[in-house]
Amino acid sequence: MVRIGIIGMGRIGKVHLTSISTRVTGAKVVAVSDPYMGDEAKALVEKYGGIKICGDYHEILSDPEIDAVLVCSSTDTHASISIEAIKAGKHVFCEKPVDLSPEKILEVGKALEGTGLKFQVGFNRRFDHNFAAARKAVEDGKIGEPQIIKITSRDPAPPDPRYIAVSGGIFLDMTIHDFDMACFLSGSEPEEIFVQSAVLIDPAIGEQGDVDTAIIVMKMKNGALAVIDNSRKSAYGYDQRAEVFGSKGAVKTSNDSLSTAVIADDNGITGEKPLYFFLERYMESFSTEMIAFVDAVENDKPVPVGIEAGLNSVRIALAAKQSVAEHRPVTL
Amino acid sequence: MVRIGIIGMGRIGKVHLTSISTRVTGAKVVAVSDPYMGDEAKALVEKYGGIKICGDYHEILSDPEIDAVLVCSSTDTHASISIEAIKAGKHVFCEKPVDLSPEKILEVGKALEGTGLKFQVGFNRRFDHNFAAARKAVEDGKIGEPQIIKITSRDPAPPDPRYIAVSGGIFLDMTIHDFDMACFLSGSEPEEIFVQSAVLIDPAIGEQGDVDTAIIVMKMKNGALAVIDNSRKSAYGYDQRAEVFGSKGAVKTSNDSLSTAVIADDNGITGEKPLYFFLERYMESFSTEMIAFVDAVENDKPVPVGIEAGLNSVRIALAAKQSVAEHRPVTL
Amino acid sequence: MVRIGIIGMGRIGKVHLTSISTRVTGAKVVAVSDPYMGDEAKALVEKYGGIKICGDYHEILSDPEIDAVLVCSSTDTHASISIEAIKAGKHVFCEKPVDLSPEKILEVGKALEGTGLKFQVGFNRRFDHNFAAARKAVEDGKIGEPQIIKITSRDPAPPDPRYIAVSGGIFLDMTIHDFDMACFLSGSEPEEIFVQSAVLIDPAIGEQGDVDTAIIVMKMKNGALAVIDNSRKSAYGYDQRAEVFGSKGAVKTSNDSLSTAVIADDNGITGEKPLYFFLERYMESFSTEMIAFVDAVENDKPVPVGIEAGLNSVRIALAAKQSVAEHRPVTL
Amino acid sequence: MVRIGIIGMGRIGKVHLTSISTRVTGAKVVAVSDPYMGDEAKALVEKYGGIKICGDYHEILSDPEIDAVLVCSSTDTHASISIEAIKAGKHVFCEKPVDLSPEKILEVGKALEGTGLKFQVGFNRRFDHNFAAARKAVEDGKIGEPQIIKITSRDPAPPDPRYIAVSGGIFLDMTIHDFDMACFLSGSEPEEIFVQSAVLIDPAIGEQGDVDTAIIVMKMKNGALAVIDNSRKSAYGYDQRAEVFGSKGAVKTSNDSLSTAVIADDNGITGEKPLYFFLERYMESFSTEMIAFVDAVENDKPVPVGIEAGLNSVRIALAAKQSVAEHRPVTL
Repeated sequence: MVRIGIIGMGRIGKVHLTSISTRVTGAKVVAVSDPYMGDEAKALVEKYGGIKICGDYHEILSDPEIDAVLVCSSTDTHASISIEAIKAGKHVFCEKPVDLSPEKILEVGKALEGTGLKFQVGFNRRFDHNFAAARKAVEDGKIGEPQIIKITSRDPAPPDPRYIAVSGGIFLDMTIHDFDMACFLSGSEPEEIFVQSAVLIDPAIGEQGDVDTAIIVMKMKNGALAVIDNSRKSAYGYDQRAEVFGSKGAVKTSNDSLSTAVIADDNGITGEKPLYFFLERYMESFSTEMIAFVDAVENDKPVPVGIEAGLNSVRIALAAKQSVAEHRPVTL
Repeated sequence: MVRIGIIGMGRIGKVHLTSISTRVTGAKVVAVSDPYMGDEAKALVEKYGGIKICGDYHEILSDPEIDAVLVCSSTDTHASISIEAIKAGKHVFCEKPVDLSPEKILEVGKALEGTGLKFQVGFNRRFDHNFAAARKAVEDGKIGEPQIIKITSRDPAPPDPRYIAVSGGIFLDMTIHDFDMACFLSGSEPEEIFVQSAVLIDPAIGEQGDVDTAIIVMKMKNGALAVIDNSRKSAYGYDQRAEVFGSKGAVKTSNDSLSTAVIADDNGITGEKPLYFFLERYMESFSTEMIAFVDAVENDKPVPVGIEAGLNSVRIALAAKQSVAEHRPVTL
Repeated sequence: MVRIGIIGMGRIGKVHLTSISTRVTGAKVVAVSDPYMGDEAKALVEKYGGIKICGDYHEILSDPEIDAVLVCSSTDTHASISIEAIKAGKHVFCEKPVDLSPEKILEVGKALEGTGLKFQVGFNRRFDHNFAAARKAVEDGKIGEPQIIKITSRDPAPPDPRYIAVSGGIFLDMTIHDFDMACFLSGSEPEEIFVQSAVLIDPAIGEQGDVDTAIIVMKMKNGALAVIDNSRKSAYGYDQRAEVFGSKGAVKTSNDSLSTAVIADDNGITGEKPLYFFLERYMESFSTEMIAFVDAVENDKPVPVGIEAGLNSVRIALAAKQSVAEHRPVTL
Repeated sequence: MVRIGIIGMGRIGKVHLTSISTRVTGAKVVAVSDPYMGDEAKALVEKYGGIKICGDYHEILSDPEIDAVLVCSSTDTHASISIEAIKAGKHVFCEKPVDLSPEKILEVGKALEGTGLKFQVGFNRRFDHNFAAARKAVEDGKIGEPQIIKITSRDPAPPDPRYIAVSGGIFLDMTIHDFDMACFLSGSEPEEIFVQSAVLIDPAIGEQGDVDTAIIVMKMKNGALAVIDNSRKSAYGYDQRAEVFGSKGAVKTSNDSLSTAVIADDNGITGEKPLYFFLERYMESFSTEMIAFVDAVENDKPVPVGIEAGLNSVRIALAAKQSVAEHRPVTL
């Protein structure tokens, strides 16, 4: 039984608490911490029972009964808390991005060296049923050598412009998942990136120095080309699709919806919109990634998404920002 | 070059004139006849050129240059004109139903005996790309032994109730195509039939002694079960689907629409309705059946849809009527 | 907090234990009983904690702390245990069929009278996301008046022929869900039924006096026609679809699969097979029906699937058997 | 009746002869010319009748009875023959590309000035049922302001490498259709283009200085972003899809296949591959564009695809080549 402490009980901390408590065999959340624990978080803690509430996350780090911590605090604290946790001998599951600066991520990597501790990054989409099936088709050789990777990733609504300032912008906040997905699906990583972007949805986003619509082209080290298209606002809801085209065929995923029901009437043949946003769409993947983390800890297996993935995705995001700033292809 | 005369220049006669003139290599319409030739028919005749207009179809039958005739007149004249044509030594393509009475169809069969002439019945749906693909899957053994055949056949709008009286009712007018399709897809014919039916669309149809909604269950001689569902009025247009379920799998067809475009918006994901009605939906199949007929005539091959198919479908339709009247399963 | 005892810890008892423990807020399983509790069941009991294991279900019935029981024992004991539970003042969730005899179900109904206790029957498919969406479309008037209901229900593999003898045959064991679904989707119940059936899969099923392939046609009291097609063995897995056609349109559901990934290669465009069998396919619906039951108990609401549904479905199944035996339409 | 001469009776000349002769009302091919008229072309000419065969296209240009010519000769002669035809007072339908050099196309434009003659460029895909439906959705405001245009265009097999040398390379030969499509769908034209490309299919293509796989990103003048992905070899056949994402929704097209039949078996649920190549896939669009051209000539309407479209597409293709050569975004 892996004993887990969760640091940070915002939206994603609560997701992990619930999925560990209800869907992950072999693990138990024994402590949570948050300087401003909300009522909803308290209710969950009470519901699942046997969980200590800590005001300060150091209580979790110093608890010898705790095997692993989930770092679900604000992004700017991910790296430092991770390092503290490693020094305290805890396995770490760290939400993405590990940090907005590659240097800090490298420091985390340094701290990990020789410890034998597990460090997994929260790229949950790799565990999603659709994307995992696409990756499996690639791995199984069903499509031959990957040549073109296409990812569509559109949010239902833009974040509050004030959030954009602290998020690091669209590439570090939103596209970072897609960068990781391009690496995951291709089994490679980019050597060059070019971004064409625009502010088409909300001028306030532009005023923050960010963009809300983008097409990103990458050349991967294995020769494949990859393209991501992003929008901060999709009228029909969360749009999350991928396609890998290769020498022997292609694999393509579609969106999930709440049901397969279609209505045929005078207007046409109408199916449901995609699931609204990431909590609905990816709920299952949050459990699956946690099962994988617990399995790595308990059975001393390699984590499926290590710190390199965390580092790569941030490096790509920063290169994307540079491509926008200098309006040219940027080599990684 | 097969020289063809068309007897009857109503809707279906014009369809055949056009498809032979534009899509059938190796055949030429050289004469047409209709006691009341409409303006549209005249315009087509002029457009394609080199076609004699006859007031009386006997002119066609007595023309030694004509190899084959298409019997596109009203149903009650199909059998007698076919017999005259056979006696005149013409190959015959006869629209369905050959007659509403099996006895008359048998007389046509008798007239054919020993003549070596071709006689094809206009069950054009066998030549439709979707249904033909389903049949091919069955023939190729892709689904193993057929066990369940399902046919959905719903019209966009009911005919004028006055037409119903002369049409012989839903089973002889509309379902007759589906009966033939059940035989075609299963490679068998029914030994028993039961009909559950209702008047749900227009009471005037009921007043004519007919029904507008029906579910028809058949046991086929090869052991398979078949079910047809019919409606005279589908709000989303012409619905023409089939499914054959067998010991190794199933094959299923969907409706055709004008384009594959789907619109995703706040209302959902909406594709186009099916093609509106049989002229749009089955236009291609009218050409394909004619190509097959011309090929049979020119190269002395067996016709793909012979008089037995014409006879069977009418017998099944009459058994269906009997099942409704006596409200019990009827053996064929 | 509704305190629940589960009587019978076979496959379905374990499903309910897991879903209540992990997905149903406001309920807790506090006791389980089974004369032959398996290892897997014991492991679950231990995992979720705080659950008493009883050898005899009377311990559950006599425990004043228990509010509700789930009757998950073998079918022949459903009715008698339900009656005992009602007499002990427990709310009851009873698996389907309540009994193979309508008389016994009526006795349960009699026992319920005037008690104010809740009694829900385990027709979980009503809570399935696809079927519920179809029903919602009907209720919302999206398709107008229902005219044709079509249900396809095919199992991936037939049961052991020895099981067939005790199951009451295909209609009481398998089609009973479809009978209930036809009532649910149409908002009505049948007044007449006719069955065309065959033994096409395994002669041993026929030797048990049962069939393995069937098409069932019903006339519903509201005038709609309904058709169910059943097979005990579908080569591509569990096939569970429905369609309701009405005066203003139609609603249709498709199968669920594990992912939306499709592979395009030289063989064609290939998507995944349906989810394998009912535990995978309907897992979510088992939670949803339990949430509804707990809600009914806790907030004194009407149960969504009452004893009438349990009674109707068995009456229809028996009429279906009679239709096969006498080979005629049977009035209910 | 528009009297037409066809100059060049290769593959596309024959397509136009057939579609005018069988599907275009109000037009008649009266003469064809080709220095090396093949047997297949001769057979068609004979079949449709009333057509003069000319060895030299000047015979066509000097025939006062001919209203319009189709320039279907080799690309390097398109511009000069077009100019001659204009000077001879003929309306011109010119296959794409009008020329590989914008200067020459401008000369054609100059020749046209003040003549009142029609000049249509053969971008047939605009007339395809799927792409036309997508454009109509945009025009009708169904998706709001276009923000992202995506075009997938993959050929089933690469051309002979020797052809590549004369074709001007992938952008002038293959992507030119996609460039025009991006303009058509967005209702705009690019102001900037960037290409990421590779040789992944056949090194011989690279040896010709060309690429076989490309992702092309454009910024359109109306602010929308566009992306095209190209491959010279798709294992599952011709892949021709488009998507336009806008402020109110998106429209998406899929590939056409020969039938809607899908086979469900132990391998999954398998539909047919796309139609094999452009003659099958776009046959209907070749007729539709010709109907539009004849309509423009006969009724003095503006042509739907004028010389500007021919000029734009070549300019974009050349900018694409420059982007590859200089590996940077190129302004148009």
